[in-house]
Amino acid sequence: MSAHFADRLLAACRAKGNALCVGLDPRWDLLPDEVRSRHALGSLEAMAGAFEEFCLRVLDVVAPLVPVVKPQSAFFEACGPAGLAALQVILLRAREHNLVTILDSKRNDIASTAEAYADAAFAGTMCDSLRMPVWPADAMTVNPYLGRDAVEPFLASARHVGGGVFILVRTSNKGAGQFQDLACAGRPLYRHVADAVAAWSAENTGLSGFGDVGAVVGATHPGELASIRACIPNVIFLVPGYGAQGGSADDVAPAFRADGTGAIVNSSRGIIASFAPHEPDWEEAIEQATRGAIDDLSAATAMGRLAN
Amino acid sequence: MSAHFADRLLAACRAKGNALCVGLDPRWDLLPDEVRSRHALGSLEAMAGAFEEFCLRVLDVVAPLVPVVKPQSAFFEACGPAGLAALQVILLRAREHNLVTILDSKRNDIASTAEAYADAAFAGTMCDSLRMPVWPADAMTVNPYLGRDAVEPFLASARHVGGGVFILVRTSNKGAGQFQDLACAGRPLYRHVADAVAAWSAENTGLSGFGDVGAVVGATHPGELASIRACIPNVIFLVPGYGAQGGSADDVAPAFRADGTGAIVNSSRGIIASFAPHEPDWEEAIEQATRGAIDDLSAATAMGRLAN
Repeated sequence: MSAHFADRLLAACRAKGNALCVGLDPRWDLLPDEVRSRHALGSLEAMAGAFEEFCLRVLDVVAPLVPVVKPQSAFFEACGPAGLAALQVILLRAREHNLVTILDSKRNDIASTAEAYADAAFAGTMCDSLRMPVWPADAMTVNPYLGRDAVEPFLASARHVGGGVFILVRTSNKGAGQFQDLACAGRPLYRHVADAVAAWSAENTGLSGFGDVGAVVGATHPGELASIRACIPNVIFLVPGYGAQGGSADDVAPAFRADGTGAIVNSSRGIIASFAPHEPDWEEAIEQATRGAIDDLSAATAMGRLAN
Repeated sequence: MSAHFADRLLAACRAKGNALCVGLDPRWDLLPDEVRSRHALGSLEAMAGAFEEFCLRVLDVVAPLVPVVKPQSAFFEACGPAGLAALQVILLRAREHNLVTILDSKRNDIASTAEAYADAAFAGTMCDSLRMPVWPADAMTVNPYLGRDAVEPFLASARHVGGGVFILVRTSNKGAGQFQDLACAGRPLYRHVADAVAAWSAENTGLSGFGDVGAVVGATHPGELASIRACIPNVIFLVPGYGAQGGSADDVAPAFRADGTGAIVNSSRGIIASFAPHEPDWEEAIEQATRGAIDDLSAATAMGRLAN
């Protein structure tokens, strides 16, 4: 894990010939009946067990096809300690599959508290004798509202292990603009955040020319996606909002540079809930949905130019 | 837990005659030798066990003295699943002590993901048959960057159980101003967030006149604290930065209304690291530090007017 994060990410995208990220956001109501039936629901531990089985089987299906997976911490936290143990197992298994992992936890805090969050994913937790990451990930998502000195502990911890950080710039929800679009000194707030991301990213660039600090920019605002892409060409975008949230492949296209690099596109429900719970062949449905998303994105974006 | 959050918080402050919140931010290096010696460090489970023992003993000391405690999620997460199990135990014990609990986790996300974070603390997790909160808290901290529709799931879940939410407005770190101070339409960003907090808070006010959505405003920026207080009089402030972070009781004073209501002041390291690790009488040190902070704040702020 010593190579630069951006180089590793780009190599993974080239190896798979696409830049699709599968979001692991398990929800009990959307799990296959077949999985649920093996984990009779009566405890959070049972729910965690079902989430673990489901996500591990999703990994088996998608690992040959895509370069990146993104577990969503919230759904595992909602199962309590057993859910977080499942998250550990899933992150480790993804790494065994040579998938790049992004822990989507949107953490943020100051000073030693930010360090504790970051070290749990990257450098290992607080005691010198326990320098193993608790939730080993190649990258994590971070909320920028607290400013530079609150973001820096995440960067420092990530850089210790060749990891990356994705900063929320323009999120994919409908109300994202309430604060992110406020005009500050003639430019929306998200542009100020994007500029900060570019500066942090430029501190440590890989052989690819991309930095190790990326930007989360939603597919649901294609105009803003294009304008942010133009401003910060050397920053990798993580693009949520494609698929179930309403963003099309055309909407996502501006995230990519002409050579097909520069972005990864996440799809969660569009893949992991691409079947009705009673369908026995749900793994086939996931494979078809994954291949379908890759084809859709390859046709409409420069992603198709990634060498295989 | 059906009474309005602000009314419960105010009643707790009146009962104790102060508005001090003790932050539970355990760090291995700052624990008493006596506690560490019982949890030989060789695993994250041992560290979690030490954190649990230490925090439970802190609760025994401070519960008769203060109205509120605020566990910091990061330090428990850094111990892995065992740390989160310890956090559960500590939150439950705090409730048995009739302490108001604020889970400091600064969560943020959109739609059903925000719901999952919120329900884990308030309404209970996702399955109807499992409607128990995983990390039961009276309130939690939330980051506003994603905007209204990302904050609303936290409010809805909190209101389901008479809980509260504290929104980050102006944080206590040195670099907080990078984005929070940007001038948007003639006012700093944090003022726009403060206005949104006031609007959310006004949706559900208690008998006290305060709403159930509070504002996190650092003690390290007393001028801004005063200006925000003047703008949003019916919002309860959670004030970090007093004590070890450099804020004085005079700095904190503007957070309070003239009758001593309207704010709670957090101290973490100033209380739970108020001794050298080798000192055997560390619980006495914590008691003295707690009483000292209460006296300091009572002398310099209107908090002293809270009826006992």
